[in-house]
Amino acid sequence: MATETLPPAAEWQAFPARLDAFLARFFREQAERYAYGPFFEPLYGDLAAYVLRPGKRLRPLLLAASYRTLGGERPWDDPSLLRAAAAMELFHAFTLIHDDVIDRADLRRGLPAFHRVAEARLGQGQSRPAEASADAEGIALVAGNLLHALALDTLLATDFPAPLREAALRRFLQAVADTGAGEIGDIVLGTRNIGAVRVEEIERVCALKTTRYTFETPLVLGAILAGKEGETLLDLARLAEPLGLAFQIADDLADFAASAADLRAGKKTLLLRAAHDRLGEADRALLLLALSLPGGENDASRLALLRGLVEKSNAPALLREREAALRRQAREELSRSALPTAFGALFDRLDSLAPRP
Amino acid sequence: MATETLPPAAEWQAFPARLDAFLARFFREQAERYAYGPFFEPLYGDLAAYVLRPGKRLRPLLLAASYRTLGGERPWDDPSLLRAAAAMELFHAFTLIHDDVIDRADLRRGLPAFHRVAEARLGQGQSRPAEASADAEGIALVAGNLLHALALDTLLATDFPAPLREAALRRFLQAVADTGAGEIGDIVLGTRNIGAVRVEEIERVCALKTTRYTFETPLVLGAILAGKEGETLLDLARLAEPLGLAFQIADDLADFAASAADLRAGKKTLLLRAAHDRLGEADRALLLLALSLPGGENDASRLALLRGLVEKSNAPALLREREAALRRQAREELSRSALPTAFGALFDRLDSLAPRP
Repeated sequence: MATETLPPAAEWQAFPARLDAFLARFFREQAERYAYGPFFEPLYGDLAAYVLRPGKRLRPLLLAASYRTLGGERPWDDPSLLRAAAAMELFHAFTLIHDDVIDRADLRRGLPAFHRVAEARLGQGQSRPAEASADAEGIALVAGNLLHALALDTLLATDFPAPLREAALRRFLQAVADTGAGEIGDIVLGTRNIGAVRVEEIERVCALKTTRYTFETPLVLGAILAGKEGETLLDLARLAEPLGLAFQIADDLADFAASAADLRAGKKTLLLRAAHDRLGEADRALLLLALSLPGGENDASRLALLRGLVEKSNAPALLREREAALRRQAREELSRSALPTAFGALFDRLDSLAPRP
Repeated sequence: MATETLPPAAEWQAFPARLDAFLARFFREQAERYAYGPFFEPLYGDLAAYVLRPGKRLRPLLLAASYRTLGGERPWDDPSLLRAAAAMELFHAFTLIHDDVIDRADLRRGLPAFHRVAEARLGQGQSRPAEASADAEGIALVAGNLLHALALDTLLATDFPAPLREAALRRFLQAVADTGAGEIGDIVLGTRNIGAVRVEEIERVCALKTTRYTFETPLVLGAILAGKEGETLLDLARLAEPLGLAFQIADDLADFAASAADLRAGKKTLLLRAAHDRLGEADRALLLLALSLPGGENDASRLALLRGLVEKSNAPALLREREAALRRQAREELSRSALPTAFGALFDRLDSLAPRP
């Protein structure tokens, strides 16, 4: 078993700002490599600014914390450890950019989605504004692909031993495939009526689309870079499963309490499915009717009706219980595993970072 | 200098069918890894069929030929050599799928574009056909991302020595970034009037978007895997430049002689720019007017006018001369380089594979 090195709280706190400083430097240093010409350089700046928008840096933090907790010897501010952690954030930004194009979302982290940023950039001196939107979506897709390649290249550019670097990269690529399959699953579930979507299907999509790259990959990559293999990686994957689903549920509940964007869009969440299952026959029919109204995303009375039905079903309270149970499950998995107990501190940190209403 | 092993014509001829057999086996073997569930499996089959549509397999052929010509010792049917070559084709399929979404193209290689395939797949049992198109585009994007990851993973899964494998992968990732920048450049040029697009800009976009991953990357990766570095890689990159531009011009001329899809869409090609520059003032004004007509892509009289103006400008003959000059330039670069003269046979092969009216 590895030495248990409990990371001091100060390191956790300092990490996101340290990562951001690394990312800012990284984009400055790469600028020369990406000096493709005047058509590209403003967009490169936009892309750097997009990645650097304030965020929790959850995935980089998990990678670095897993590495350190499993006895990885490099300090928290080691350039290669920061670089590997940064790869997680670059990959995350890639998925956000593509997701927003796919969902035609206008906002991300309270600011314009990347395709909207590109549209504003194109609009300068653009003679055909009507086509700028489609062009901007194309640019956003390609910019996302560039971040995807950059994330992988960044992991390869670390100075960890080559076999570890390669093992980490292959595991990362598996996660990319899983994430893609989960996104496809999400789109396919979106085409169905909520009554025709099973709870296990929603949970499976969450496991592929969210858990894999948000929890499992950072934890496992940190372990691989610390020289671990076999059972340790399996233990981490087992922990990641309930943590990921709890995170998704917390996210769903926070959205419901705020703008309820998921409910407006009829997104197939566990919350909506639970509401559907718990309502009486008449209310359920009303729920399905309200969900099926075309173009109702900005209809305030429809949203009020949907919200009222979800509240009446008691689904939010049930899901809060489910979230707590999943967090307990993760701690039980930890105590059953041979992992250092110091991972408990990581769970406390995750609890404090969970989306909250 | 490496031993000059002139590949027998029989090997060249046999290679595409051998690669296709490898790809078919590859998709079958991977099926278990990608058994995500009933929502995904039909799409996985669609994706395999898409990659296996008949094609010239130009990029895999270049990789294998470069490897063999530079003294790589594995035979043409070595599983790892085929695997590395297959990575080129997987990456190519990824770019085609994304390009067709970006361009809203309906056809690819005479069959439905991948987002149209996904749309047909979704349409089975779909209750809201109006939204199926947007959903299908989302699926196509994600499926493309999956092929992107698969291409990289496939290269890593070869049993070439680890340092060569890693050097090849990093070079590949650079090409991905270049290709992305070229695609962005293409979109940005597309927003401008042909008179405001400089010849050097069109050539720069071609170098990034087409030459890099179609010629330079396969040639250089084959060399890296054969254990070459330094000057050999620079020589190959120098050869790739005129070959790539010649290929693009041949492609533009073939399109002009067939459906003239580029001209209908007002694509910023060297052909269109040459026509613009060679026409008299009145004809040029007419060309610009016809190009600016909104929604005219399927207007036969507009196309006839545009075609007539391009012919009148003599631009097709000029570009045919330019193509021939570029091919001569590539041969001159070869004779000036320290590369094996056997690369001349590769050029003959390329000539025979160039798009022709």
